[in-house]
Amino acid sequence: MAMVCLSDFEAYAKKYLPKIAWDYFAAGADDCTTRDENILAYKRIRFRPRVLRDVSVMDIRTKILGSEISFPVGIAPTGFHQLAWPDGEKSTARAARAMNTCYIASTYSTCTLEEIAAAAPGGLRWFQLYIHRNRAASQQLVRRAEALGFQGLVLTADLPYTGKRRDDVRNGFRLPPHMKVKNLERAFEVCKMSLLDPSVTWNDIYWLRSLTRLPIIIKGILTREDAELAVRHGVQAIIVSNHGGRQVDEGPATIDALAEVVEAVRGRVEVYVDGGIRKGSDVLKALALGAKCVFIGRPALWGLAYRGEEGLQDVLRILQDEFRLSMALAG
Amino acid sequence: MAMVCLSDFEAYAKKYLPKIAWDYFAAGADDCTTRDENILAYKRIRFRPRVLRDVSVMDIRTKILGSEISFPVGIAPTGFHQLAWPDGEKSTARAARAMNTCYIASTYSTCTLEEIAAAAPGGLRWFQLYIHRNRAASQQLVRRAEALGFQGLVLTADLPYTGKRRDDVRNGFRLPPHMKVKNLERAFEVCKMSLLDPSVTWNDIYWLRSLTRLPIIIKGILTREDAELAVRHGVQAIIVSNHGGRQVDEGPATIDALAEVVEAVRGRVEVYVDGGIRKGSDVLKALALGAKCVFIGRPALWGLAYRGEEGLQDVLRILQDEFRLSMALAG
Amino acid sequence: MAMVCLSDFEAYAKKYLPKIAWDYFAAGADDCTTRDENILAYKRIRFRPRVLRDVSVMDIRTKILGSEISFPVGIAPTGFHQLAWPDGEKSTARAARAMNTCYIASTYSTCTLEEIAAAAPGGLRWFQLYIHRNRAASQQLVRRAEALGFQGLVLTADLPYTGKRRDDVRNGFRLPPHMKVKNLERAFEVCKMSLLDPSVTWNDIYWLRSLTRLPIIIKGILTREDAELAVRHGVQAIIVSNHGGRQVDEGPATIDALAEVVEAVRGRVEVYVDGGIRKGSDVLKALALGAKCVFIGRPALWGLAYRGEEGLQDVLRILQDEFRLSMALAG
Amino acid sequence: MAMVCLSDFEAYAKKYLPKIAWDYFAAGADDCTTRDENILAYKRIRFRPRVLRDVSVMDIRTKILGSEISFPVGIAPTGFHQLAWPDGEKSTARAARAMNTCYIASTYSTCTLEEIAAAAPGGLRWFQLYIHRNRAASQQLVRRAEALGFQGLVLTADLPYTGKRRDDVRNGFRLPPHMKVKNLERAFEVCKMSLLDPSVTWNDIYWLRSLTRLPIIIKGILTREDAELAVRHGVQAIIVSNHGGRQVDEGPATIDALAEVVEAVRGRVEVYVDGGIRKGSDVLKALALGAKCVFIGRPALWGLAYRGEEGLQDVLRILQDEFRLSMALAG
Repeated sequence: MAMVCLSDFEAYAKKYLPKIAWDYFAAGADDCTTRDENILAYKRIRFRPRVLRDVSVMDIRTKILGSEISFPVGIAPTGFHQLAWPDGEKSTARAARAMNTCYIASTYSTCTLEEIAAAAPGGLRWFQLYIHRNRAASQQLVRRAEALGFQGLVLTADLPYTGKRRDDVRNGFRLPPHMKVKNLERAFEVCKMSLLDPSVTWNDIYWLRSLTRLPIIIKGILTREDAELAVRHGVQAIIVSNHGGRQVDEGPATIDALAEVVEAVRGRVEVYVDGGIRKGSDVLKALALGAKCVFIGRPALWGLAYRGEEGLQDVLRILQDEFRLSMALAG
Repeated sequence: MAMVCLSDFEAYAKKYLPKIAWDYFAAGADDCTTRDENILAYKRIRFRPRVLRDVSVMDIRTKILGSEISFPVGIAPTGFHQLAWPDGEKSTARAARAMNTCYIASTYSTCTLEEIAAAAPGGLRWFQLYIHRNRAASQQLVRRAEALGFQGLVLTADLPYTGKRRDDVRNGFRLPPHMKVKNLERAFEVCKMSLLDPSVTWNDIYWLRSLTRLPIIIKGILTREDAELAVRHGVQAIIVSNHGGRQVDEGPATIDALAEVVEAVRGRVEVYVDGGIRKGSDVLKALALGAKCVFIGRPALWGLAYRGEEGLQDVLRILQDEFRLSMALAG
Repeated sequence: MAMVCLSDFEAYAKKYLPKIAWDYFAAGADDCTTRDENILAYKRIRFRPRVLRDVSVMDIRTKILGSEISFPVGIAPTGFHQLAWPDGEKSTARAARAMNTCYIASTYSTCTLEEIAAAAPGGLRWFQLYIHRNRAASQQLVRRAEALGFQGLVLTADLPYTGKRRDDVRNGFRLPPHMKVKNLERAFEVCKMSLLDPSVTWNDIYWLRSLTRLPIIIKGILTREDAELAVRHGVQAIIVSNHGGRQVDEGPATIDALAEVVEAVRGRVEVYVDGGIRKGSDVLKALALGAKCVFIGRPALWGLAYRGEEGLQDVLRILQDEFRLSMALAG
Repeated sequence: MAMVCLSDFEAYAKKYLPKIAWDYFAAGADDCTTRDENILAYKRIRFRPRVLRDVSVMDIRTKILGSEISFPVGIAPTGFHQLAWPDGEKSTARAARAMNTCYIASTYSTCTLEEIAAAAPGGLRWFQLYIHRNRAASQQLVRRAEALGFQGLVLTADLPYTGKRRDDVRNGFRLPPHMKVKNLERAFEVCKMSLLDPSVTWNDIYWLRSLTRLPIIIKGILTREDAELAVRHGVQAIIVSNHGGRQVDEGPATIDALAEVVEAVRGRVEVYVDGGIRKGSDVLKALALGAKCVFIGRPALWGLAYRGEEGLQDVLRILQDEFRLSMALAG
């Protein structure tokens, strides 16, 4: 089977992953409307192709928060990579470094931050965190990440409670016994989502700011009002995200929300977007609408499921080739 | 089979109810366009999710016409509950009381008002009525309901004649011999829809007013013009309803008509809506568009069909959980 | 099989008619887009239902060009009724008279005008004609119709050439040997569509006018420009029609063109519409948009195919009942 | 099997061509959205049919760049005709001449320009070219075409790199060993797409102008900006084209881009369009929107696949008949 486009990896993962893992990665909230809308919205955006421009040399490198990456596609934070590949987040870290891009490691990793850092020394990595009821635990995680050379803190803002993903409920989803949410083992006796603090507000950004010198990137913004609040509370960057359609169903597609956020922000902070990226032309559309970079979630997992770090590199390489070609053809 | 969302109850009911009963409950007028549109219209309404708000404590109780209910979802009037569960409306009454919400008992119940009242003493109940050619009969029903502690009168305004529900015609739908429209047994020798009076007009509201001290809620309003007339004729509340798409086909979805009615009413009376509620997020949308409360029709019947009063409680509990989660996630 | 709505007759006809006959009646030009659009366009039009109006007595009779009919639905001209039922147009004439409505007999009938007139003496009938290259032949047809008591002349304006109906080409459609286009036998040695004169223009209305005292109804108008021309050339009525989608594909649905024509005409002549009527509510929509009456084509043929004149009466009776119910429920 | 419309030829070709050839001809870039949109966009354009106009005589001839053709449909440049029929482009040339229309021979022909010219002496032909890295090679091709009596040079502007056609990648598409891109054999040792020069800009039009007296037609324009540039750089005509949806996916359908280009050009050069033409009415729509002529790509290949030059003539004859009928019926 030739892997020609990202859908090929999706088909592979659907076929070969255990159903409970596939369902978990694929899950959307409620009717999965927003999950699917993330993709459909890209299709509604049309190019105006220009011709006869010299496209013999193209530079697709970019910088995010000052760090250069080989092309404007990073790895979004997703949990439980060992469900996709035995080496889990270690493979993800290696693939990201090999492709010279940024990997946002999730709090809900099945490898520790230390293992991730050791797997690919020198790679550009950010750490995604939730704020827990036990603030000391969150604080400890931040300090660990900073000490390990992670270069950004991504605060996920859209998960005061977990969205209702019906298949996970039906499957009674839980990690297999041999996998653990290792980052939290040190801090908590038990790992439960309910450790998340639903009373978190914008003021907690200031608290987070006080803990670390790392730039703070806020993830989960979908409106101009919240974008303005984010800027005012001093974040360094925004990821326009709806958590892959796993939290609020029937909200906007991220690519549709992007323009609103970019306009509100007026260049004061960098804006990224995740959700629904399936082709190089999607990347180009996001950039044309004002994103500095995009992040991929599920496609990274499909790449892992296909062949670990090599599979993820395949995914990134295809996106890179498609992105370059789209730039050339669209003029 | 895990019951995770209301569609699961629908699937169960479709599988296990006798076809003639399923068809009767599912029926829509003509091409069923409006029945289906009630649901599709909710999907077209999109949230603008806000983040980082303190959602650790949420109060979802509300009051309708002065009575507190545990959350803004009541039971709409539907007929013939014994078709769904042997105990019929008695189970419905018990489930509504258990969940501390309002049950609108239909004239076309298969239990008497007295049986319903006795099944769940102290529950909040309204009585739905049609005006019959024999006004004395209608008068008697009103007085019985009032005497039994029903706290509101719901006048259905959209059924001068019964809509054309093709499957019911094909099935030759009629109640099985052991079921009866018991409320009407005392008043009429035979029970026929043609006892309904198609010459009823707005002036009959005054007549109804003269019979009772109960608040009058008018059900079946879809336009600003009729909303204005309802207010002027002194009703206490309006239920925006198209009778579940069983009367006029190709009219508006109720959620689309709601905004128009709310605007016309300008807060002078309470406005509720029924039709198409399938998820907690639908409830939130209806409230965001100005409804004080919503009522569910078919989903209540599916709950009954699944496991009587327990099944209906399951349905209400799922809606309640989903509604609370939607509020939290949408900020 | 209970015949509950017009679709039931369609299903019957599709099942029991010879394929070549079904295909001929069902045919649309090219991709059949306009044929199907005629129906879809009705579905896009929505009612604003009003309630609590006295609908106990409704008068659904109307007058077209001064003649009273029992309800505003007549029989549009269609050819070759013997393909649907052995007695052909004689059955059609009898059913129309029984239901007290108007039947427009086609030039391409398989019974003569004389047979049609004799089958149902006293019925309200109009005669549909094309203008042939041999004007004397057309003149003779007009005089025959007038002498036989036909009370209107319907000039079809949209068939300078026959549209491309692919299935008819594939089937090599032609009448079976025992059927004939009898009206043309006297006038022509052979019956070929190519006898139609593609050079006919508006001036030929004057010529037609000079031949007869009968009112002239022009059929096939879809634009305000042509509606204005029709009025100026002295026709008595207009049928907004696209020939059931059998001539120009990808033109407007008739119900969409109706408003434009009604507005242009400003009440100077009566306006009717055909194409896509499948339910009583469609009739109500057409009337609400300004039509004085509608005409049904294919549904009449399905009625004939089901059970000759009785079947056609069934079709008309269902439409009548549905129309009356729609009026009551829409207020 | 009767060949009634172009879809019949498509079905035939899909059934009888080798899969690798069918896939190559059918291929669109990425998700094939634009390829399919080319067709769907025609369907969204609606006629306003006029009646009672004298359509007994219609002249459907036209002139493109001064040369008369029998009707406004030519053959767009497509590669590798021997994949469809053994005689390849020789058959295409003969069919075009027989139907008295224009054939644009592709650089990527499997016959030489000399063979094409010899196959149908006197036919109206243009030559399509890309500009290669080796300018001398391109120059030589231009001179050969001019010497052989080709009457126009069509410069394809939308292929700095080849679009990503997934099926071709999966199939590992390459010509069978017995076929060759003969035009390029003389000039290059090997034939590779990468010989195309992605640094070509508008200034190269001047270079091309300096090589030949032939009119230059630029193919691949989709925006008003590029249309204006084309006029300013002195081309004689524009073909609005998206390469059959094989280059940029999710750009505009050509018929949608046409109006913008026509408006920008303001009659200074002739404008043609290709992509999505499947019926005579499509031709009429393109002309109504300002095109002087249309060109067909895949349908010509289906005609060849069906029966060589006769099959292609069948395709052209059907389009011609449909176009004439559409003109008559639309008034």
